[in-house]
Amino acid sequence: MSTPSPLDFDLVVLGGGSGGLAGAFRAAQHGARVALLEPGELGGTCVNVGCVPKKAMWLASELAERIELASRLGFDVADKPRLDWPAFIASRQRYIHGIHASYLRRLDAAGIALLPARGRLRDAHTVECENGTRLRAKHVLLATGSSPRRPDVPGAELAGISDDFFALCDAPERVALVGGGYISVELAGVLQALGSRVDIYARSPRLLGHADAELVERLQENYRQQGIGLHFGYRLAAIEGEPGELRLRDADGHAGDAYAQVILAVGRGANTAGIGLEEAGVELDADGNIVVDAFQRTSLPHVVAVGDVTGQVTLTPVAIAAARRAMDRVFGGRADAKLDYDDIPTVIFAHPPLAAVGLTEAQARERHGDDVHVYRSTFRPMLQALADRSQHSLFKLVCVGAERRVAGIHLLGEGADEILQGFAVALKKGLTLADLHDTVAIHPTSAEEVVLMR
Amino acid sequence: MSTPSPLDFDLVVLGGGSGGLAGAFRAAQHGARVALLEPGELGGTCVNVGCVPKKAMWLASELAERIELASRLGFDVADKPRLDWPAFIASRQRYIHGIHASYLRRLDAAGIALLPARGRLRDAHTVECENGTRLRAKHVLLATGSSPRRPDVPGAELAGISDDFFALCDAPERVALVGGGYISVELAGVLQALGSRVDIYARSPRLLGHADAELVERLQENYRQQGIGLHFGYRLAAIEGEPGELRLRDADGHAGDAYAQVILAVGRGANTAGIGLEEAGVELDADGNIVVDAFQRTSLPHVVAVGDVTGQVTLTPVAIAAARRAMDRVFGGRADAKLDYDDIPTVIFAHPPLAAVGLTEAQARERHGDDVHVYRSTFRPMLQALADRSQHSLFKLVCVGAERRVAGIHLLGEGADEILQGFAVALKKGLTLADLHDTVAIHPTSAEEVVLMR
Repeated sequence: MSTPSPLDFDLVVLGGGSGGLAGAFRAAQHGARVALLEPGELGGTCVNVGCVPKKAMWLASELAERIELASRLGFDVADKPRLDWPAFIASRQRYIHGIHASYLRRLDAAGIALLPARGRLRDAHTVECENGTRLRAKHVLLATGSSPRRPDVPGAELAGISDDFFALCDAPERVALVGGGYISVELAGVLQALGSRVDIYARSPRLLGHADAELVERLQENYRQQGIGLHFGYRLAAIEGEPGELRLRDADGHAGDAYAQVILAVGRGANTAGIGLEEAGVELDADGNIVVDAFQRTSLPHVVAVGDVTGQVTLTPVAIAAARRAMDRVFGGRADAKLDYDDIPTVIFAHPPLAAVGLTEAQARERHGDDVHVYRSTFRPMLQALADRSQHSLFKLVCVGAERRVAGIHLLGEGADEILQGFAVALKKGLTLADLHDTVAIHPTSAEEVVLMR
Repeated sequence: MSTPSPLDFDLVVLGGGSGGLAGAFRAAQHGARVALLEPGELGGTCVNVGCVPKKAMWLASELAERIELASRLGFDVADKPRLDWPAFIASRQRYIHGIHASYLRRLDAAGIALLPARGRLRDAHTVECENGTRLRAKHVLLATGSSPRRPDVPGAELAGISDDFFALCDAPERVALVGGGYISVELAGVLQALGSRVDIYARSPRLLGHADAELVERLQENYRQQGIGLHFGYRLAAIEGEPGELRLRDADGHAGDAYAQVILAVGRGANTAGIGLEEAGVELDADGNIVVDAFQRTSLPHVVAVGDVTGQVTLTPVAIAAARRAMDRVFGGRADAKLDYDDIPTVIFAHPPLAAVGLTEAQARERHGDDVHVYRSTFRPMLQALADRSQHSLFKLVCVGAERRVAGIHLLGEGADEILQGFAVALKKGLTLADLHDTVAIHPTSAEEVVLMR
């Protein structure tokens, strides 16, 4: 047996985000020789300009809210304490650097070759680095992720994108967020809690088009109570003014208030440009996403793709789970390994958070007509009640059929982010309302409301 | 058909705690004429001197801890803010009065006769009120609860019991807690976080004898780091001194430090005295608990008992669930309705909380020998890591057999109180490790660690 060339690999991975890393580690576990190409920071969007710093900022805003509650309840603290942003951001970035260091250690321990370079697919078995080096690969994993899109309007370059949110060193006095999706909702909640006055401008008639309408209505009510301005059916025509004093102009020609910051959150696009995909024969869809089948296979044999670059449920844990299963299939002898894309639980880190798995009421009615049975619990968590605040949680079950199979669980309220995971496991096992009632409640919690709905 | 006398009832309930109320409401739903006897406050231990005020105090101590974290992370707040106890307690008691008022409204709406009197069982169909009025009952539900016990040592009357904790108007400077069970653990965590210096004296070699040993070890470590003194194998012989300056004397004759407060938490006893049980023929066990079968039936036909007075899993939701099922059986035509006492989830509101369902590792090994497989995750929740604190969470799965059936879930760490409920539902449905792995994680949360353990 001849020694393989140092440039011969069983797997070459393009992209060192969550999906690429998970695929590389799993392939290496199965004994594959792996090279990983990443020109930027390891961890991709999630670790650097997504989930992780977002959650850190959300935790800061939660602390601000807790302090306000504490002030109402007799603690000797200001109800609107000042946050030293640079200090907090130093902690946040130290945490993120810790993740980078941990990835480097793990790559090293797994014997994975890390190349800090952009790669370009030449054919199904060849990846070319920026400096011209060519790697031979039995298999290729594409995991280059996605990036925020800017709308095509004059002045769009004056505004920031979600990446720029993470470069802020203080809460801007007034902020406009353009977009009605989860990124807009999350950033708005954080900034408002940390002292900004926030307006959301959305083209749609409501926030979070994919979420259950009833929960979104209450979320919008929460946001209005917090002082966030909501503007629906808004058609952005231009962004005008100077940095620090920007105005939005709508399709009717009206210009509104001045904002210290405008942040665009109108969607993300797959990172498929400039890496040789079309030339090599990898099919893209009309939106520029890589087309994959249920096994993450692209149109080019031996080339698989996972995560945001495929445009499928663009969540970090989905990219990770899909990558692991694809590598189990390719290198682990599990020919049928694939990710089930049904009933994936998600959390939107709003204030308070919104957690959901399965069908919304509207989706269930579309599929099952009148045989849909909805159960709700509206309640004040004890801390809110103690502080005599009006914020209520809304938990909702969407059940189907005589046996009341639980097809959807929708939770809006504090703790929802941590409550959902276990119920998502139960839902995937074929949960019924009777199963919930057969489980003794844990008192006093918010989670018990899910098993007590009747 | 003759009109029934106003003193004839289908059901007479002794005790207006959670179990008695739940039974009364459920029986009334089934159309029964119900009388409820309660000489004290409605809601029993849970609402008045148990779960509810305990959780309120725990929330206060959580706020204190959050403020300390906030101070470390750049918020302009003192790291040890003062709490105005009387103000907080006013909020707590207002909340509790709200529960009382809600019970009264619901009793009224359900047409249940509330008698503010102690009842005495004369025979299976007769309950006598304190003033001599006799009620006729087709069925009787005994739900008189339990009370804290005092140890039989000189000076025991100088110390408080858990009820007295709720009468405190400030954090005493130094507190001794006698007992190693969950009440001691919960009160210690609260008082230490609110500014007391706490010592726990336990007869046992460790805290929480029924909980998983590995989690308890970490909990003890957490408590020591918080400054709580832990004294094991302690034999209390006497309590001495003056109010405000009390000392414990042990079996060897040693007296220790002076404490502003000593709180006894050495167990609770069923409230079975003075209500005519033995005279009427209701069997009690050696510990004074009412003996019941799987259908909550006592030795006297037509007399059922639920909750703490039976000494079975003494938790509010258990009393409620048992009462509802007993009334479904007696009045709802569901002859087989009974509570399954297996796999009841519980949370101990320690700092941070400990949540568990199913078998501990030791119990599993006793039943299943070598075929027990344990999975662990030790991690720092993001907020703890951001604040550079060393407190780690420990999550543990106890699995059995080749299929890795999950027989026990044990969670120690922030959020555990809300995370467990859903997993407890899944466990009751026959959860396996593969089911957990088949569910996509929610990132970044603590709950996702449960589905990621390998």
